[in-house]
Amino acid sequence: MKFRRSERLIDMTSYLLDHPRKLVSLSFFAERYGAAKSSISEDLAIIKETFEHRGIGTLKTIPGAAGGVKFFVKVPESEARPFVEELCELLANPDRLLPGGYLYMADIMGCPAHVNQAGRLLASYYAEKEIDVVMTIATKGITLAYAVASQLNVPVVVVRNDSRVTEGPTVSINYVSGSTKRIQTMLLSRRSLKEGSKVLIVDDFMRAGGTINGMINLLQEFNCELAGIAVLVEAEKTGERLVDDYLSLIKLSDVDVKNKKITVREGNYFKKAKN
Amino acid sequence: MKFRRSERLIDMTSYLLDHPRKLVSLSFFAERYGAAKSSISEDLAIIKETFEHRGIGTLKTIPGAAGGVKFFVKVPESEARPFVEELCELLANPDRLLPGGYLYMADIMGCPAHVNQAGRLLASYYAEKEIDVVMTIATKGITLAYAVASQLNVPVVVVRNDSRVTEGPTVSINYVSGSTKRIQTMLLSRRSLKEGSKVLIVDDFMRAGGTINGMINLLQEFNCELAGIAVLVEAEKTGERLVDDYLSLIKLSDVDVKNKKITVREGNYFKKAKN
Repeated sequence: MKFRRSERLIDMTSYLLDHPRKLVSLSFFAERYGAAKSSISEDLAIIKETFEHRGIGTLKTIPGAAGGVKFFVKVPESEARPFVEELCELLANPDRLLPGGYLYMADIMGCPAHVNQAGRLLASYYAEKEIDVVMTIATKGITLAYAVASQLNVPVVVVRNDSRVTEGPTVSINYVSGSTKRIQTMLLSRRSLKEGSKVLIVDDFMRAGGTINGMINLLQEFNCELAGIAVLVEAEKTGERLVDDYLSLIKLSDVDVKNKKITVREGNYFKKAKN
Repeated sequence: MKFRRSERLIDMTSYLLDHPRKLVSLSFFAERYGAAKSSISEDLAIIKETFEHRGIGTLKTIPGAAGGVKFFVKVPESEARPFVEELCELLANPDRLLPGGYLYMADIMGCPAHVNQAGRLLASYYAEKEIDVVMTIATKGITLAYAVASQLNVPVVVVRNDSRVTEGPTVSINYVSGSTKRIQTMLLSRRSLKEGSKVLIVDDFMRAGGTINGMINLLQEFNCELAGIAVLVEAEKTGERLVDDYLSLIKLSDVDVKNKKITVREGNYFKKAKN
């Protein structure tokens, strides 16, 4: 059965969105639709133009016999900025204040619309970099890490603070949580991470960076390489920061518990994305 | 700027896939593209046909002034079956065997391609039912719960075994884990679940169902309603099952530790989806 162009465009769009960073050969599409490669090339040109114009992402063509096309997520600043502003407004709601100056964020981390879009923004920055796996620590960062991993088409591994029988042998390290100064343990299943992997660490919140620093130390135990650190929210007033190169969507500037005022602003994302 | 049909089809496909179960008015699309509503209607008819033909999902048109179109995920059996078979093969790998007859599944639960597709299958079953929120328990089920929630366009809430300062006030219950018979505690942030919500419980693995039963009891504390239970894997040999109405993709029939043989087969999904 032959497909009309309109049907091809719809199905190719769905397929590409579903397989980011995967090299798809023109023959694959040509066979899928019983169409000539030249028609597929034309289709892809239209999709690329529309993806770029609508801020969905971009397509890259790899020429040659082993070539094909790859979809990369790419959120333009014009779309990213209003989203980060919306997040800032959500976070500044004084109802989020918890004892100790902590913020309730579980609703945001459980909302697919917000998490998927935050994941798209963070993945945009790393889309064309070599990333083999996304790492996070249980529990609240998992949804965001998963959203980023989906857009990068890599697995996500979850570090834990306690061991479970369903993990098999684990590697554990001790670390000092930067803000509380307490010594804690984190562990990761031995078989979850291949030696030499390039790892992007993703988390929902970074205070001094002690937990993320722990994950970096854990990477060394697996002979893996740190490829980046991305967080939804970084706290600005933390004393010494243990981590220096990271990406953040939002900065928590101040939490005034007495007057119930939370001050947030955009993180370093836009500055870093420009370079 | 006027959009050509091909550009509209690509962007509408991306938009609809990104907003499942959301009522989108024809005027929204008409304004977005500077097109007549009659053209949008034609576009939607093409998209609906292609979505159904390619097993992506379906569109439902709601007529009238407050009407519009809704996208529902719907994976056809022809696509679901090979996927479940692939999962069965993955799970039957004897390398997954852990002491005590447990199975290592963290790699599958961390793989976006598998989890997204499993999420689509489970969400297909519930797509047209009233679901307000997806509930799971930390940690391993979170990615699947999030994938299902994304397709149903509802938030996911995460029950935990320990309390954190970032959760605010919590409600806790004791429950008996069906297989180990130990009394444990599970808790959920008070503000994470609105009274009267219809809740779909999603988890990666169900043995006797004690943990899921605990979540059902927790729902009652929040005056919420159970709308369904969906698991990736159910263990078949468990003695008394504490939960009776649930959906499963895979049945773990037998784990022969001595001979390192894992026997799996399809769950009740296809039987239930037919009714």
